[in-house]
Amino acid sequence: MAWIFKTKPVIKAASAVGGPFEAKGPLASSFDQFFDKLDGGEGSFEKAQRRLMEDASVHAMKKAELKNAEVDVFLAGDLINQMTPTNFAARTLSIPFIGLYNACATSMAGFMTGAALIDGGYAKHVLTAAASHHSAVEKQFRYPTEYGGQKPPVSQWTATACGAAILSLSGEGPYIHSASPGRVIDYGIKDPYNMGSAMAPAAADTIIRHVQEPHEYDCIITGDLGRIGKQIAIKLLKESGMNLSQTSVLDCGELLYGSEPQVFSGGSGAGCSAAVTCGHIYQKMKAGEWSRVLIAATGALLSPLSVLQKDSIPCIAHAVELRRF
Amino acid sequence: MAWIFKTKPVIKAASAVGGPFEAKGPLASSFDQFFDKLDGGEGSFEKAQRRLMEDASVHAMKKAELKNAEVDVFLAGDLINQMTPTNFAARTLSIPFIGLYNACATSMAGFMTGAALIDGGYAKHVLTAAASHHSAVEKQFRYPTEYGGQKPPVSQWTATACGAAILSLSGEGPYIHSASPGRVIDYGIKDPYNMGSAMAPAAADTIIRHVQEPHEYDCIITGDLGRIGKQIAIKLLKESGMNLSQTSVLDCGELLYGSEPQVFSGGSGAGCSAAVTCGHIYQKMKAGEWSRVLIAATGALLSPLSVLQKDSIPCIAHAVELRRF
Repeated sequence: MAWIFKTKPVIKAASAVGGPFEAKGPLASSFDQFFDKLDGGEGSFEKAQRRLMEDASVHAMKKAELKNAEVDVFLAGDLINQMTPTNFAARTLSIPFIGLYNACATSMAGFMTGAALIDGGYAKHVLTAAASHHSAVEKQFRYPTEYGGQKPPVSQWTATACGAAILSLSGEGPYIHSASPGRVIDYGIKDPYNMGSAMAPAAADTIIRHVQEPHEYDCIITGDLGRIGKQIAIKLLKESGMNLSQTSVLDCGELLYGSEPQVFSGGSGAGCSAAVTCGHIYQKMKAGEWSRVLIAATGALLSPLSVLQKDSIPCIAHAVELRRF
Repeated sequence: MAWIFKTKPVIKAASAVGGPFEAKGPLASSFDQFFDKLDGGEGSFEKAQRRLMEDASVHAMKKAELKNAEVDVFLAGDLINQMTPTNFAARTLSIPFIGLYNACATSMAGFMTGAALIDGGYAKHVLTAAASHHSAVEKQFRYPTEYGGQKPPVSQWTATACGAAILSLSGEGPYIHSASPGRVIDYGIKDPYNMGSAMAPAAADTIIRHVQEPHEYDCIITGDLGRIGKQIAIKLLKESGMNLSQTSVLDCGELLYGSEPQVFSGGSGAGCSAAVTCGHIYQKMKAGEWSRVLIAATGALLSPLSVLQKDSIPCIAHAVELRRF
């Protein structure tokens, strides 16, 4: 049963910050800032990821004309072990903090939980963010990028990016209408290089549970299924009887890098759906180009340990419906 | 500003499950189940931790007379990288899932978020849990226990335990009255063996912000400051002007193992405050021995990486107030 937010919590402001590679992508104009160097001058990739989140958060608060002390709660997470970059960003921001972890679906976990806290009366303003850093994530989940390991064409490219948003009880602009938290879905896929395929069933499951009339949406946008995963999700949706003839199905991982071949199947990472939502999607809605979208952020709940212990890849997708009017 | 839950979400049922070592402790009678073997017969410590959470969740749902399909959302987390045991437990339970990570403060992050979702009208029943496994956590954060590494007397003992609770919109029993989410507090301590000291300022910060009249509480119970950390927290609270002459200050890490010397300063781990809350504290409140308690679960937001990168240990404490009447 979808969560309907009666008070229509508004996205008062949002910001996307990225790395040098993202600056070359088709959505570059939707970002507020890019790092010139991959480590952001911070000395380590993890510290750079912390800076991504701090900077995106500061941009969002500035646009919302809020001081840190006026923000009631900070909901955020990332992919790094123990969410170290997020924890340290939370220290810098000094806002009451609840850490969230749903892998690359964390962005929408933050949006839905933040909307629920505002709608329930526990917060007037919520800061929510999710981030990832390509080199920090590669080092942790696979191999340090300096190793130069080869990857298969089904794989994806972890974005160096953060999306941060201020959600507020009142104001003008795109608002959070409703949301559906996902269940963990596992079709038994074990290949950690093929996460798009592993996540597609979870995306389909949540979208089917949330969407009544697909033609009423301008688009349904998955988090990071990539080219391959998105095709599988569309197939599963159609097999369930959903009529997508009048609905665009897009994917943040595809949108972020366009046809760049280096990213294989497309972008991924906790920062991918966050940055595309807080930049591109939010701006298109503010401009009135889209008035009703469903963002289904997708997460692969694996770890290097689960792969070593020969488990399959359980996945999850959280859906948040944004409306303009 | 504390969150006040107008509908008084009830702890409909709760369960604590532990390992062989916990079975010898002073709170053993408050647990529903113990593993005979440290790996629970599952083949790895991480899979054992998954089983702890599954079993505690099933016990709680059985006591609440609920099927999985009747539970609206599962809020849970643990200390393992990417929360692998929790993710796989979520797969087994098949309940819409939002993962939470605040280290050993995760238990109360779950209680407060669950209470907010019920009070806001998004859930009638919430399952919340947090777990840890001694050997899985030692292997990840420090050394595999087979290594036989020595530890200093300020250190603590990660509990092999899970606490799971069903929070409901209606029913009889102890209820969640209010909560205060913590801010990240960092006094610059860098010793990863002395987490009690690192966390004490965070505990004091949140307790000071939540508690108006300390004498109105039967007790204030911290999560896992241990003997050393608890003394520091009491000192900080008194220095802030709080009169604790009529209030017991207890600590779940101390309660769980009593005077057992092997645990040095006391128990710790995400499962420590969870199991003590869902077993001992809950039962004492049901029995009417306590009618108003504040549980301030404490978390050290470090990681092996943050220690290697020479950062200090940022900490957090989340406080939840339980009342009987």
